[in-house]
Amino acid sequence: MKTNATWTYPTEIRIGRGRIEELGAVCRQLGMTRPLMVTNKGLASMAITRGARLALKEAGLDHALFSEIDSNPSDRNLEAALLLCRQGGHDGVVAFGGGSAMDIGKCLAVMAGQARSLWSYVDSPEGLKAADERVILPLVAVPTTAGTGAEVGAASVITNTATEMRTYVSHPRMMPDVVICDPELTVGMPKTITAGTGMDAFSHCLEAYCARTYHPMAQGIAVEGMRLVKDFLPKAYTDPVDLEARLNMMSASIMGAIARQKGLGAIHALSNAIGVFHPIHHGTANAVLMPMVVAFNRKAIEHKIERLAGYLEIPGGFDGFYQFLLDFRTSLAIPRDLSELGLVGDDIDRLTPIILRDQNAANNPVRLTEESVIELLTGCY
Amino acid sequence: MKTNATWTYPTEIRIGRGRIEELGAVCRQLGMTRPLMVTNKGLASMAITRGARLALKEAGLDHALFSEIDSNPSDRNLEAALLLCRQGGHDGVVAFGGGSAMDIGKCLAVMAGQARSLWSYVDSPEGLKAADERVILPLVAVPTTAGTGAEVGAASVITNTATEMRTYVSHPRMMPDVVICDPELTVGMPKTITAGTGMDAFSHCLEAYCARTYHPMAQGIAVEGMRLVKDFLPKAYTDPVDLEARLNMMSASIMGAIARQKGLGAIHALSNAIGVFHPIHHGTANAVLMPMVVAFNRKAIEHKIERLAGYLEIPGGFDGFYQFLLDFRTSLAIPRDLSELGLVGDDIDRLTPIILRDQNAANNPVRLTEESVIELLTGCY
Repeated sequence: MKTNATWTYPTEIRIGRGRIEELGAVCRQLGMTRPLMVTNKGLASMAITRGARLALKEAGLDHALFSEIDSNPSDRNLEAALLLCRQGGHDGVVAFGGGSAMDIGKCLAVMAGQARSLWSYVDSPEGLKAADERVILPLVAVPTTAGTGAEVGAASVITNTATEMRTYVSHPRMMPDVVICDPELTVGMPKTITAGTGMDAFSHCLEAYCARTYHPMAQGIAVEGMRLVKDFLPKAYTDPVDLEARLNMMSASIMGAIARQKGLGAIHALSNAIGVFHPIHHGTANAVLMPMVVAFNRKAIEHKIERLAGYLEIPGGFDGFYQFLLDFRTSLAIPRDLSELGLVGDDIDRLTPIILRDQNAANNPVRLTEESVIELLTGCY
Repeated sequence: MKTNATWTYPTEIRIGRGRIEELGAVCRQLGMTRPLMVTNKGLASMAITRGARLALKEAGLDHALFSEIDSNPSDRNLEAALLLCRQGGHDGVVAFGGGSAMDIGKCLAVMAGQARSLWSYVDSPEGLKAADERVILPLVAVPTTAGTGAEVGAASVITNTATEMRTYVSHPRMMPDVVICDPELTVGMPKTITAGTGMDAFSHCLEAYCARTYHPMAQGIAVEGMRLVKDFLPKAYTDPVDLEARLNMMSASIMGAIARQKGLGAIHALSNAIGVFHPIHHGTANAVLMPMVVAFNRKAIEHKIERLAGYLEIPGGFDGFYQFLLDFRTSLAIPRDLSELGLVGDDIDRLTPIILRDQNAANNPVRLTEESVIELLTGCY
């Protein structure tokens, strides 16, 4: 085990029912006078968005709304946001919504005052670190889903439309200055999204917990994050307005995103590769792959899983935990395998090299080889 | 349970064997050219201190050493450090050592450029927040013990020599910019200090875990922190040069300090009060009081402790955990009760009101009353 690491932990998180009302005061404290609110297309006209805008208005904050964001956000979306931001003289960003609103909002805050384009920085040797720190705008993040944890990450995924590559872009100041987590904003999620995003948080925690990296803080956060998902995802799924359950799922989402600093593994290597070719929900794909990967990793993680099962009050050690995963998926109406997700398994040869190149492959507790990936993947259909 | 909270997490932590060699580079990155190194009296001439100074010298950093610090650091110590810092034109602080070096170093960094005295800020309505942020010096913390976790806290305890009160002083910028945790710096601790400081970390984790506050990240960190102490404190105690054990105890110490954001409880309320009148080691006192307080809190924490015992692989649920605490203390040669610590129990009447006023009393899972405190305290002798 490598016991040499550099740790950072995130930012101010304000969590609780009704805390969206603090949005105006938070923006003011950060020095904003004319924030630009960035949100997903589908959210623009919804009541929760109107509520957040009201909170800005009541704090006397003149603001505008930008919502022209594709579900896989691109540099074109960013350019449109930058134009609006500069023309409107906006001096702060509120990222409000799911993962793609976070991606564009976080990038916008960093890029708003820069003289060059995003890719001119990203493609340079120094990367986005060369951006002028002094002109970066203050940033508040308000998630309306509970799964990705993008609200506490310092990175975005933006599609480069010239190369058609989904590109990972990061800068320390992409970390929001303040995060507001209000569970009332998440009650409108469709059931399948509640299940899929919730299992995404679980998959972040589980893979981080199993990764070999030395990061005991992340490890502890992962353990408690999984307990929250186990205890509260079924409640949020069954009763969408259970605000205690929603709040705990927002916590679990954040915790998954923080824990993944410790590293992920084969679940994400596989689901990332599959996601390149098939438009399936990322969190749902992770949930489908989870038991197969856990069984694959058994020899390296058995003792850790036994300890985890003890904390989660799951009897039967490793086997009990494996059975719990199967039952948990079933209770959330998550497909049993990739075939049930509609995939036919005709592109294993194409997926295997992509999986092996994925940055998460190296952190898997059992080393991934071409042979073992083919075997693992075959078993997932 | 209150599910409304504001969370912050700490700073850059560089942990690992030999990382003290990065001290010079870290100071340079923070813009220091002439740091002032602040350390405990007893450490000034020791080899680990010479090693750290060498690391500064090799990075071309002219620096001075200040070590006139009492074991309970006072405003007089701070004044002397301020004088040296200003006369020497120092532009950064390295706090190197145990809790008292951290206390003075952290305060010095905030106060070095201020026009007014510490108490003139602390006693004003705005408190130390009124200090001019622009003149605060960069700060690196290098702990040489593993227990208090002061290296990741934004507060110091400084004795006000005019009032004779130990006073809690805090400012967000007291949080070190970078923390360097090198286990080699902790191998020289006497055995009783290894045991006492290690149990201090455990007591922070245990009380934070049991506190009713909603802070699941802190809760998870506490769980894993206790596992580290359970697995590694006996090793560090038995074999002082076991660097893996020492490293994990440094992690546990940090984790205890982060977890305590969630709140502490009766162990600390009692040991703080006792510490006012009796010069006993704080961590050792916490270890002595721990089983009595856990038994006292049983009705409020039983289920949580069962879950914890599952993770720690301690059989027998709550009773098993209680027995583990007794055995663990014995294995570390920690006294069984306050009588064995040399106290006679003649000042329970004097201690009780101080305990009830202690800020940690309100967070104890079972409400503390005058009657119950007297009963609890009586059982500790």
